[in-house]
Amino acid sequence: MTDLVLPTYEDVQAAAGRIAGHAHKTPVITSRTFDEEVGAQVFFKCENLQRMGAFKFRGAFNALSRFDERQRKAGVVAFSSGNHAQAIALSARILGMPATIVMPQDAPEAKVAATRGYGAQVVTYDRYTEDREAIGRDLAQRHGLTLIPPYDHADVIAGQGTAANELFEEVGPLDAFFVCLGGGGLLSGSALATRALSPGCKLYGVEPEAGNDGQRSFRSGAIVHIDTPKTIADGAQTQHLGQLTFPIIRRDVDDILTVSDAELVEAMRFAATRMKLVIEPTGCLGFAAVRNMKESLRGKRVGVLVSGGNVDLAAFCRLLG
Amino acid sequence: MTDLVLPTYEDVQAAAGRIAGHAHKTPVITSRTFDEEVGAQVFFKCENLQRMGAFKFRGAFNALSRFDERQRKAGVVAFSSGNHAQAIALSARILGMPATIVMPQDAPEAKVAATRGYGAQVVTYDRYTEDREAIGRDLAQRHGLTLIPPYDHADVIAGQGTAANELFEEVGPLDAFFVCLGGGGLLSGSALATRALSPGCKLYGVEPEAGNDGQRSFRSGAIVHIDTPKTIADGAQTQHLGQLTFPIIRRDVDDILTVSDAELVEAMRFAATRMKLVIEPTGCLGFAAVRNMKESLRGKRVGVLVSGGNVDLAAFCRLLG
Repeated sequence: MTDLVLPTYEDVQAAAGRIAGHAHKTPVITSRTFDEEVGAQVFFKCENLQRMGAFKFRGAFNALSRFDERQRKAGVVAFSSGNHAQAIALSARILGMPATIVMPQDAPEAKVAATRGYGAQVVTYDRYTEDREAIGRDLAQRHGLTLIPPYDHADVIAGQGTAANELFEEVGPLDAFFVCLGGGGLLSGSALATRALSPGCKLYGVEPEAGNDGQRSFRSGAIVHIDTPKTIADGAQTQHLGQLTFPIIRRDVDDILTVSDAELVEAMRFAATRMKLVIEPTGCLGFAAVRNMKESLRGKRVGVLVSGGNVDLAAFCRLLG
Repeated sequence: MTDLVLPTYEDVQAAAGRIAGHAHKTPVITSRTFDEEVGAQVFFKCENLQRMGAFKFRGAFNALSRFDERQRKAGVVAFSSGNHAQAIALSARILGMPATIVMPQDAPEAKVAATRGYGAQVVTYDRYTEDREAIGRDLAQRHGLTLIPPYDHADVIAGQGTAANELFEEVGPLDAFFVCLGGGGLLSGSALATRALSPGCKLYGVEPEAGNDGQRSFRSGAIVHIDTPKTIADGAQTQHLGQLTFPIIRRDVDDILTVSDAELVEAMRFAATRMKLVIEPTGCLGFAAVRNMKESLRGKRVGVLVSGGNVDLAAFCRLLG
């Protein structure tokens, strides 16, 4: 077993300096109606209002801005069908470097078009017969590209932590904080900021019920691998936590909770009708968990990280219409 | 003709003091994608994220907070099927006074329920055979209630002006500013703030094409009355400007523009898919006008007042799905 160097809060602070002026400092939004419903004071950090619609821009931009001259010239490669792809493509465009994104052949046309729209080269693969990680590694080796994985990377984790960092800087310490959990990049980065700025805060990761590998890993002490879970929370359809994200989560997180797809839909409906926000299913994980936990949150100051808003309108209306 | 006392910028400042701590200081949101599309730097003042989902809360709360002891005890009456009803009902609840709202019998059940949910008494009328203004005046006289009209009232105008006031305080002077126009409460209040804080700014009111009474009034110099226009911008289905709003608009506004319903739908789609915001059709009037005017806005700093987000999900999905 190799010694892993885990990112620290100092890395989050350095990332905050690198993304300043490039990432949005997203607004913190409150809803008196929701506060009355749960009997707490809830602060929503709205990363659905981040550039390209999700927190992923923070980690991608932080990672790419640390490339040396040779890496910049050769460019970046990433495999993703989701928000990480667009985050890498947009960051590469801003920093003036080539980007190659490996996406499944059957990825939604809108996502392929958005990624190409940011100037990235898209390489497709058959998700039933080919291994995207192998394709990514092969491209990296043959062309000298630097592979940036979606979550298990110190610079990505540090970048994702800047959202929680901004939240605590704006509203001060909290009693409880709910963060979506897929591969753990956002949760582990948020943990670094939380332990530095609000050490007594209860920190919860929230997963879809159908994909509770994080909860099982957290409770058993070893990374559990699962098949791709069936859930509308497509940003949390990860199969396992990372070598870097897991030890931070074990050390700094208080518990991992799960919510059902039906609870995600109801949270999306509340967000759209009462808060006027489009939130993707994954983005509602923390939100839905607060509702489930409300008995124990009475009178408390609570943070919710809304991770993204990238759901296409047809799917949005199918779920809520 | 009686001498009308028009509200001034000092009244806007006083209103800002009264609503502080009650109204949200709504976020100003930017979109690089939209900036690239129009070639300008555009600041969206997001009143869809205001309490009860629209700027109307500002004017209602300002007006009600000026009631004397006798007025508070007897309460307020308003006639509205839209955002003004909920704004008055919520403001009355916060200030601890009774509210009576006169609404058409066939108003959407959700709006009636929301208004009752804020503790108001709802009185219904038949919109084809009865006159809501007469009903409101009769209730006011019989029970000593104070009638607060939706736009033609100095305290309402001053309250609505606080949104533009916050925008200029946050982003500084602008080259052009686009504000939705129905009865003119928001536009005339915004005009007071604009002329005080950004005197050289071009100020545009924007109406639905089908209901261009404001444009015709502005250009002819006399208030034009029209039949209730057929448009999806239900917040701008007013039949005429007011005795107070018109002279301010004539004096301080540079022009009145119109946009089509199809342009409103495209602006709603952009807002939902790229900016992750639910905006009601009326709320997109300024937004859509910027797109139409983009040739003359290149390189400029532009403000857009997004007035509200109260569109029900079924209607939203019918328009955009």
